[in-house]
Amino acid sequence: MDTLNDSSPWTQPRDRVREREVKREAVLRAAAQLFNEKGYHATSLDEVAERLHVTKPTLYYYVRNKEAILFECVRIGLEMMRAAIEAAGASGGSAMDKLVSAMREYARVATMDFGMCIIRVGEEPLPPESRRQLRRLKAAIDHEFRRLIEQGVTEGSIAPCDPKIAAFTLAGALSWIARWYRPGGELEPDEIAVQCIGLIVNGLVPRPAGAG
Amino acid sequence: MDTLNDSSPWTQPRDRVREREVKREAVLRAAAQLFNEKGYHATSLDEVAERLHVTKPTLYYYVRNKEAILFECVRIGLEMMRAAIEAAGASGGSAMDKLVSAMREYARVATMDFGMCIIRVGEEPLPPESRRQLRRLKAAIDHEFRRLIEQGVTEGSIAPCDPKIAAFTLAGALSWIARWYRPGGELEPDEIAVQCIGLIVNGLVPRPAGAG
Repeated sequence: MDTLNDSSPWTQPRDRVREREVKREAVLRAAAQLFNEKGYHATSLDEVAERLHVTKPTLYYYVRNKEAILFECVRIGLEMMRAAIEAAGASGGSAMDKLVSAMREYARVATMDFGMCIIRVGEEPLPPESRRQLRRLKAAIDHEFRRLIEQGVTEGSIAPCDPKIAAFTLAGALSWIARWYRPGGELEPDEIAVQCIGLIVNGLVPRPAGAG
Repeated sequence: MDTLNDSSPWTQPRDRVREREVKREAVLRAAAQLFNEKGYHATSLDEVAERLHVTKPTLYYYVRNKEAILFECVRIGLEMMRAAIEAAGASGGSAMDKLVSAMREYARVATMDFGMCIIRVGEEPLPPESRRQLRRLKAAIDHEFRRLIEQGVTEGSIAPCDPKIAAFTLAGALSWIARWYRPGGELEPDEIAVQCIGLIVNGLVPRPAGAG
């Protein structure tokens, strides 16, 4: 149903704010894609502008510079992961069920533009204070994985292990997807996630019939 | 027992060749350590020279430039991995036994200067032809992992799985060690490798008593 505002040919302030947000995200996303394809140092803002069919000065209306873009790409990716993993951790079931949901979320975000940027580029090119901020977000994700593993070991749904090494092992296996996954390739992200997590959960050793 | 040559105060040609090799490796190793600590782009050849207490012009007697150094660091790391993994693959036992040995070698090299450089820096900053050469070495390692997994699935020592995804999953888990391992930290490389591989082999799910 059209209201008076919606049918006005003049852009309303509320719409302008939303429009700016949409365009800013398009700039960040185009940059993330180029960083992921070519690397951060090999990507220029001219290429980002070209991909969006705008001029470079137009970009500066939405972002400060290349470093600020990378910071936002990695921050958004990490925030997506953290929020999804914490939601999985707060869902029902055993700690193992929650951990599997959390791993699914991690893998899902790792195949998306901003998530891929965390692993393919990361915070290394950024100044110390930005690195510290992003590392705090990473630590929160790691902390949630360890918490679920510890809980699983305590309740018996997860085999006894060092939670720190186990958390790094599964994060490594899942992060690697962002390195080798090719959008549009023969394997779908969902299929990769299911098989990769199946392996982390069940291991390479065949289970005796009827077990597992 | 001293021969005449060994006791001569003049350096003999054979010794000069060896001495040059030793010094060249020291240059590469110092650079690899700095790349791993600070990142490739943030490292200057001045710092490499400083760490070795020599002048920058001295470095150019052993290496052409920073790109050539990175190429050699990654190439040596990959060659070490490839050789060790192929030796493990040619050893005795089941395909699973061989795969476990190969994973041990991969993890061992990943915590060493040149091996760490493969994962922390990699071939991305290099020109296309160098990248292609290094990717061929990576592909050989991946191929060997897949071959052992396929063999294990066929003979029944490894649970049915997609060898491609399984090879990437274990390479990811093991490569991640190079990202989070801190030399001199509380965990020894051997301990990390054993636990990480134990998890990949047995999975997170507790095994029924008496199985596995």
